[in-house]
Amino acid sequence: MTAVEPSQSRLVQLDRAQALVPLAKAPFGRVVFSHQALPAIRPVNHLVEAGGDVVIRTHTGMALLCRAALSEVVAYEADDLDPGTRTGWSVVVTGTASLVSDPVELARYQAALTPWGEGDMEHLVRIRADLVTGDRLVRGSTGS
Amino acid sequence: MTAVEPSQSRLVQLDRAQALVPLAKAPFGRVVFSHQALPAIRPVNHLVEAGGDVVIRTHTGMALLCRAALSEVVAYEADDLDPGTRTGWSVVVTGTASLVSDPVELARYQAALTPWGEGDMEHLVRIRADLVTGDRLVRGSTGS
Repeated sequence: MTAVEPSQSRLVQLDRAQALVPLAKAPFGRVVFSHQALPAIRPVNHLVEAGGDVVIRTHTGMALLCRAALSEVVAYEADDLDPGTRTGWSVVVTGTASLVSDPVELARYQAALTPWGEGDMEHLVRIRADLVTGDRLVRGSTGS
Repeated sequence: MTAVEPSQSRLVQLDRAQALVPLAKAPFGRVVFSHQALPAIRPVNHLVEAGGDVVIRTHTGMALLCRAALSEVVAYEADDLDPGTRTGWSVVVTGTASLVSDPVELARYQAALTPWGEGDMEHLVRIRADLVTGDRLVRGSTGS
């Protein structure tokens, strides 16, 4: 028996299908990539394709992603954690980033993804969902 | 004159001191590191030292951070973004990660940082605030 302090929660792993559900509903997330050999992270909004691929629209400050991380493996994270109840979820999609260039796809994604900030928003980036992991923090002691 | 759609906000850069204020108040953030040459990210809670260094307490799933990222440069991100109003802030601290080993510091941090989940919580990691960047998303057209 594992004792769990009343203030603590436990992590339940989500499988790929379970993890994609909250990710698709999340209003935004964070793209994680390397820039000049340093870890970099930036919040953006996204949409999730049926297969789990994540599409993000880059703004001025994200030009570095376009230059540095295309054809590189990046991670995309979203979460919704409640510090009060210590419950919630987090999901990470890891895979290769590529520029969306197909005009039909571009138009569809541009219509679906309104950028939050002003600026040059020319680039749409698809992150292939090679690996999808997720956790849910739930209250209570360990059950099966 | 730059036209700004009514639905859009603009990004205002925060300096180091400005960025550390919301970070210190944030209930949790996300540590970004490399694991097996892939970008990795995990939500954790933190405290911010006076100089800006971030201290996090690692749980079972974070053992990889202890093995992989110590003496490596990692990033630590927190944000509070409101999808409704498209306002909020995000801050990133980038610097070298190191294990806290001093017994007095260990005791102080363990008292201050209650882990959210059960499990082996032996490691406290300090992320040196070599670089602190931040943005605030504000409403309205470009001022000043």
